[in-house]
Amino acid sequence: MHIKSQFYEDYELGVTRQTLGRTITETDFVLHAGQTGDFFPHHMDAEWCKTQPFKQRIAHGTLIFSVSIGQTASEINPEAFSKGYDRLRFVKPVFIGDTISTKVTIAEKAEDKKPGYGKVVEHVEVYNQQEEIVMVCDHILLAKRKQGEQGNSDF
Amino acid sequence: MHIKSQFYEDYELGVTRQTLGRTITETDFVLHAGQTGDFFPHHMDAEWCKTQPFKQRIAHGTLIFSVSIGQTASEINPEAFSKGYDRLRFVKPVFIGDTISTKVTIAEKAEDKKPGYGKVVEHVEVYNQQEEIVMVCDHILLAKRKQGEQGNSDF
Amino acid sequence: MHIKSQFYEDYELGVTRQTLGRTITETDFVLHAGQTGDFFPHHMDAEWCKTQPFKQRIAHGTLIFSVSIGQTASEINPEAFSKGYDRLRFVKPVFIGDTISTKVTIAEKAEDKKPGYGKVVEHVEVYNQQEEIVMVCDHILLAKRKQGEQGNSDF
Amino acid sequence: MHIKSQFYEDYELGVTRQTLGRTITETDFVLHAGQTGDFFPHHMDAEWCKTQPFKQRIAHGTLIFSVSIGQTASEINPEAFSKGYDRLRFVKPVFIGDTISTKVTIAEKAEDKKPGYGKVVEHVEVYNQQEEIVMVCDHILLAKRKQGEQGNSDF
Amino acid sequence: MHIKSQFYEDYELGVTRQTLGRTITETDFVLHAGQTGDFFPHHMDAEWCKTQPFKQRIAHGTLIFSVSIGQTASEINPEAFSKGYDRLRFVKPVFIGDTISTKVTIAEKAEDKKPGYGKVVEHVEVYNQQEEIVMVCDHILLAKRKQGEQGNSDF
Amino acid sequence: MHIKSQFYEDYELGVTRQTLGRTITETDFVLHAGQTGDFFPHHMDAEWCKTQPFKQRIAHGTLIFSVSIGQTASEINPEAFSKGYDRLRFVKPVFIGDTISTKVTIAEKAEDKKPGYGKVVEHVEVYNQQEEIVMVCDHILLAKRKQGEQGNSDF
Repeated sequence: MHIKSQFYEDYELGVTRQTLGRTITETDFVLHAGQTGDFFPHHMDAEWCKTQPFKQRIAHGTLIFSVSIGQTASEINPEAFSKGYDRLRFVKPVFIGDTISTKVTIAEKAEDKKPGYGKVVEHVEVYNQQEEIVMVCDHILLAKRKQGEQGNSDF
Repeated sequence: MHIKSQFYEDYELGVTRQTLGRTITETDFVLHAGQTGDFFPHHMDAEWCKTQPFKQRIAHGTLIFSVSIGQTASEINPEAFSKGYDRLRFVKPVFIGDTISTKVTIAEKAEDKKPGYGKVVEHVEVYNQQEEIVMVCDHILLAKRKQGEQGNSDF
Repeated sequence: MHIKSQFYEDYELGVTRQTLGRTITETDFVLHAGQTGDFFPHHMDAEWCKTQPFKQRIAHGTLIFSVSIGQTASEINPEAFSKGYDRLRFVKPVFIGDTISTKVTIAEKAEDKKPGYGKVVEHVEVYNQQEEIVMVCDHILLAKRKQGEQGNSDF
Repeated sequence: MHIKSQFYEDYELGVTRQTLGRTITETDFVLHAGQTGDFFPHHMDAEWCKTQPFKQRIAHGTLIFSVSIGQTASEINPEAFSKGYDRLRFVKPVFIGDTISTKVTIAEKAEDKKPGYGKVVEHVEVYNQQEEIVMVCDHILLAKRKQGEQGNSDF
Repeated sequence: MHIKSQFYEDYELGVTRQTLGRTITETDFVLHAGQTGDFFPHHMDAEWCKTQPFKQRIAHGTLIFSVSIGQTASEINPEAFSKGYDRLRFVKPVFIGDTISTKVTIAEKAEDKKPGYGKVVEHVEVYNQQEEIVMVCDHILLAKRKQGEQGNSDF
Repeated sequence: MHIKSQFYEDYELGVTRQTLGRTITETDFVLHAGQTGDFFPHHMDAEWCKTQPFKQRIAHGTLIFSVSIGQTASEINPEAFSKGYDRLRFVKPVFIGDTISTKVTIAEKAEDKKPGYGKVVEHVEVYNQQEEIVMVCDHILLAKRKQGEQGNSDF
C-alpha cells in the first residue's frame, strides 16, 4: 500500500494489472454472514445445499465483490476518487476452497461534467483457479486532469 | 429469514419494503478491512483523516454495499436468482456511528432472453439517520414466470 | 427481521415455528472461544480430543445456546420481553460440521405477578441433521395483556 | 487454564470463587450479532435505542451469559461434566462500556440417578462495575464420587 | 487467569511450566491476516502454496508468537513487567491443523540497572503435536526485589 | 502487495522505508484477546485500569508487534526468508486511539553460515502519532547471494 499520484492523462487505455491470489475459506463465509447479517442457507447450511443444484455452499455475491475490490487496493491515488460500479455480474459461483485473483484493465476514458475531471472506467475481472471468470464489473473513477492543476480547465 | 415463493407475475411495480436500521461501528470498519485486505488510510488512519476534507474515517464502499444488501436478505425466494447490480453509486460518505437503513422498490419488469424467466429490477436506496441517501443501486433479478411452471412457456 | 405486536392473548398453546438450518463450523468454535475466553481443550485441541470419548472437538454449550436462540430472532414483539431461561440442557454434543435448526413451541401460559402482563413459556428444541435433539430449554417471556392496554387490568 | 481433579466429595457448600473483570465493548456486541445472526435494533441501532426506555443499545442476553460462563472457565475438572443451567435470569441490562465479573458459589449438593455421580449446583452471579447483579443462573454439574473410584458404589 | 505476587527472589532457575495444547486452524490464519493486513500468498493462497517447497499454507510467524505467548498468560504477577523478547526464531513451519503447546523455563537471573528490580529470563519453547520445536524465544522480565520492598535496596 | 526479487547484494545499508499509519482501535484489542486467549485486565478491564499508573487499557505487546510487522508486508522477496527477530522491546504503551506507523532501516549485513546466503538485519521502529517510538526490534533475514545463483558460492 503506497501513495502514487495519477492524473486523468496518466491512465492508458488497455493497461492491465493483476493481483496475487487468495483462497476463499469457510471462515470468509462465516465472517461475511456475521458482517452482513445474511445467513441464507445457500451460504450457511451445508445439508440443505446438498439438495440444491450446486451441491455445496456458495459464496455471498457481496463477499466476492468485497474481496476482489480489496485485492485491487494497493495504490492510493490522491488525484482520483471512486464514483461507483456498473454492470456488476456474478458469472459463476465461488465455492469454499476456490482461489480468486483479480485483473483490472483501463477500459474507457471520457469527458465528465465535473469541471477539471475526466472519467476513467476500470474493467474488473475476477478469476478462479481454473482461470474461469466468476465476477465482472466496471469501476468508475473520476480523475483530476493535469490542466485542471494548472488552473486553465475552462479554456 | 423464511422461504416464500414469488414468481415474475407476483412482483408489482412500485411496491416498496424498508429494513430496520443498523449503526455502522468502528468495529465494522476494522472487520471489513480485515476481510478485504483494504487498509487504506481513508478507513483506518484517524490522524491522516483529520488532514482530509471529511476530517474523519469514512466507510469502505464495499462495506456499505455488503451491509445494506444484507439488510434486505429476509425472504428467500426459490423462484428467483440474483444476476447482479447496476448503477451502484456512493452518494455520500458514511461515518462511524451513522445508522443506515435500506429501502427497496420494484422499479422495472422486463422480458429476458432466458426462457421461462422475466427480469425484475429492485431499486435500492440506503439512508442514514438524517434521511439522506448515501448509496443507491439497481438489483437485477431473474424470476420464473408462472406459465413457465405450466410447461407452456414456448407457446 | 420485522416488528409484529403480539399480546399475551395472541399466544396459542401448541403453536410451533421452525427455523432454517445452519452448519456449525470450526470458525464458529474459534470465534466463540475468542468471544468468551474459554479455550478449553474440549473445544480447541484436536489432538487431545482424539484421546477422549468423543474423539473430536465438541462445541461450547454457550455457542449452541447463542446460535439457536439467535436463529429464533426473526420477529420483534414490542409487547413482550425476555425474562430468562429455565431447564437449559445439553442433550448431545455438537461437532464441527453438524447442522442445527431450532423449533419453538408455545408450551405454557400463566398468570404473572407483574400487573398487566402474563407469562408465556416457549419450549425450545435444537436438532442436528440426524433429527436428534442436541439442546433444549424453556424461554420465559412476559407479554402485555390486551386488557392491560385498555387500562382495566386491575378489575 | 489448568487441569485439577475434584470429586463430588471435594465440593464444599458455600465456597466461592470470583473472576477478574472484563469490559463489554461495542466490538463484543457486533461480534455477537455476527455469531448469532441476532441483529435486533435493541443491540444494533443506536438511533432507535434513543427512543426506547434505556436510551442506548443493550447487550444480547446470550452475550452476557456466554462471556460470564467463559470467565469461570479456568479450571478443567476431568471428574465432572456440565449438565446444563437452571433459572437463568437477566436482572439488569448491560450497556457498552460496563465491566462485568462473575462470582460462583457452591450452592447445593444432591444425590443423582446416574450411578457413581453426585449433583453439584454452582450459583452464578454476574456483577457490573456498580456492584449490581445483572445476571444469575444455576450451573448443574455431575461430579464423580470418590467411592465410585473405589469400585464400591453399589453397596 | 488469577493474580499471584512473585518477586525476583521467588523465581527459581530451571523451574518449568507447560501449557495445554491448541490447534491452529484455517480460521486463525484468516483472522490473523485480517488483524495484521498481511495477506501474503504463503498464508492465504492454497494454490500458489502447492507450487512451493512446503506444498501448503504456513502460519504467519506473528500468529505463532502471539498465540504461544497468549498460552502462557495465566498468572498475573503485579511485581513484574515485560521488557521484551530476545532471540525469537521460527524453527519449523506451522501448518493448518497443527496443535501447539508452550513450555516456559526460568533460564537466567541477573542484576538490572533499574533500582530495586532484577532481570529474569524465561526461555519459551513452542512444540507441535510431533513434539518438534517450532518456535523459541527469550522473554525478558523485570521483577521487583523483596529487599526493594523494604526500602534498603541500596545497601 | 507484489513480488520483487532482491538479493543480498541489493540491500543497501541505511536505506529506509516508512509505512502509512493505522489507528489501533478497541476492536483490535478485543480481536487480539480473542485470537491469543490473553484477557489480562491490562487490556480488557477499563475499570481496573483506572486504578493503575496508565489509567487506561494498554495494547498487548503481541498486538503491536503483529500489526507493525504486518504494516511492513508489502513486497514479497522470493530470494529471502525470515529467520526471526532480536531485541524486541516495548518502549512505550500504546493506547486505544493511538495511530502507529513503522519505519524499517537496513541496519546490518553480514556473512552467514548458510551457503549462498547472507544475513540482513532490518531495524524496525514503530512510532505513535506524537512521533514517539513505542516499539523496536531487529528483523533477521537470510537473502540469497547473486554469486550463489551463478553456482560459484563455494570459491
